Amino acid sequence: MTEQILYLSQKDVADAGLTMDRIIDTVEKGFVEMGNGRVEMPPKPGVHPGEGDNFIHAMPAYIPAMKSCGVKWVSGYPGNPEKGLPYINGLLIYNDPDTGMPLSVMDCTWITAMRTAAASAVSAKYLARPESATIGILACGVQGHTNLEAMNVLFPLKKVLAFDTKKDQADALAEYGQKTLGLDVEIVSDPRSAVTGCDIVVTSGPILKVPHATIKKDWVDEGSFVSCVDFDSFFSRNALAQADKWTTDNLAQYNHYKDHVGFFIDCPDIYAELGELVTGRKKGRETQTERTFAANLGLAMEDMAVCPLIFDLAKDKHLGTWLAL
Amino acid sequence: MTEQILYLSQKDVADAGLTMDRIIDTVEKGFVEMGNGRVEMPPKPGVHPGEGDNFIHAMPAYIPAMKSCGVKWVSGYPGNPEKGLPYINGLLIYNDPDTGMPLSVMDCTWITAMRTAAASAVSAKYLARPESATIGILACGVQGHTNLEAMNVLFPLKKVLAFDTKKDQADALAEYGQKTLGLDVEIVSDPRSAVTGCDIVVTSGPILKVPHATIKKDWVDEGSFVSCVDFDSFFSRNALAQADKWTTDNLAQYNHYKDHVGFFIDCPDIYAELGELVTGRKKGRETQTERTFAANLGLAMEDMAVCPLIFDLAKDKHLGTWLAL
Repeated sequence: MTEQILYLSQKDVADAGLTMDRIIDTVEKGFVEMGNGRVEMPPKPGVHPGEGDNFIHAMPAYIPAMKSCGVKWVSGYPGNPEKGLPYINGLLIYNDPDTGMPLSVMDCTWITAMRTAAASAVSAKYLARPESATIGILACGVQGHTNLEAMNVLFPLKKVLAFDTKKDQADALAEYGQKTLGLDVEIVSDPRSAVTGCDIVVTSGPILKVPHATIKKDWVDEGSFVSCVDFDSFFSRNALAQADKWTTDNLAQYNHYKDHVGFFIDCPDIYAELGELVTGRKKGRETQTERTFAANLGLAMEDMAVCPLIFDLAKDKHLGTWLAL
Repeated sequence: MTEQILYLSQKDVADAGLTMDRIIDTVEKGFVEMGNGRVEMPPKPGVHPGEGDNFIHAMPAYIPAMKSCGVKWVSGYPGNPEKGLPYINGLLIYNDPDTGMPLSVMDCTWITAMRTAAASAVSAKYLARPESATIGILACGVQGHTNLEAMNVLFPLKKVLAFDTKKDQADALAEYGQKTLGLDVEIVSDPRSAVTGCDIVVTSGPILKVPHATIKKDWVDEGSFVSCVDFDSFFSRNALAQADKWTTDNLAQYNHYKDHVGFFIDCPDIYAELGELVTGRKKGRETQTERTFAANLGLAMEDMAVCPLIFDLAKDKHLGTWLAL
């Protein structure tokens, strides 16, 4: 069996049925390992074919405690949707750390969508008020859906305020929130209505180097938590200045983005890495009135924390295609 | 078809039947692209599970002229042979540069073995005497075989002097050289006999940070070319000092190995990168008496130059397994 690998298509990965609560749990455990300095995760290099913002990144990581290592090779091509192709594509190779042999090749689209939202939820666990019941979602695409799903696992959500410039996206999120999650979803027509009055806000639009800066000073209520899935794209300088705690998942990568790529220019200093929050090295929320923020970047560690669980479930369910090496 | 990928096992890759002459040709074309600054090849990061020298490296590259991009994810586990597993294992993902979509996943063991030898041959084309007829092979494993095959494509080889501390390895090379390539192979019992008197020498033993330094001053004849597939492991300081031209395939990676990993400590300064030789920016061999050396490291560019040819042949021959993304 050591010379056989299991290929899992995007459908196989989804059909494995790994639930969001388990994804949040394993991602949090991964952050404990990171916070304790027990994850090997080198910088992610890549290639940039064509003009514009196309990229394909290699994201390697090794988590000894989970006996997981491998690489995610993920592309982002902004022009793909016009061609009827997904923006994000890629494969993940999962290896046996004891021998280096590949165990599985799997589509990484589903994993990327889910683990990104799970990291938001882990941040929220330490930074949002536990009784958070009202959530605002600005931009209702894939990450709008999965972030809502993830926050609903950890918080007693009741009300969703959904904003999107595209009506069909907002409608889709409303249907998902109402029918699948049983929440009260209101589609709002101005972005401020999806921010003010919310306990948790998720901004999940396109990632831009020059923020559109829609959200202004005083829109975010005191005591709110914001997960900036799209980095600082949604925030004006004055709104950012109101952050009491501005956090990220990985400081080295954050500083690289800030110093060399051009994101986060107007953002406050980093208060803590998520690994410091989950290991108690830094305190999460300390008062009812703090405005707390997570600007998580997405880490190879998260992918490697999730893929063994999918591999095991898929094997149990006889999903996928076994291939000779 | 854009959402389908072709999986090629090690056997499928070999059965595609890509010949060494075509591999040398495409690798040389890749070096022309590199020499002209038209290849994107970031540093190769990796993870290092377990104790000792285990590694798994991500090797991404993009060659616009060949419409090829992708990543090789390759492991080296020195303890694997004791477990009955190969030292080197890995997979290569080949992407469409126009969309970022994966086209193929293929075993990279065969490609690694062949393209490494092809790079030796490209170096030899510019650094060895064209009439080279006698070749010494020190360490007769996989790279001993493929380097002999590659040199035999470009040079009028007649005589092979084979040295290995393991008799079965030397016997295997002798059989391959005689039966498959039609050469006169002599197994020699001391390493000097596989160096002195040779036009071309290939050292292809294990790569060591502390060289065993078997080869001494004056063993390498004037006018010889040496391909140091195992870096400087075979060479004493005084023998290295006799090099008239010491070259590599990639200066940045060479300097990283020298300054941060601990290889090449006693080696001469680099005279040229292979890309400079193939584009004529630096002269190759200039006299009949120069001692010339190549210490090539193995580049992701080489893998990405080879994989499209295998992909096309495999499709034509209906090899491999088509999978849904």
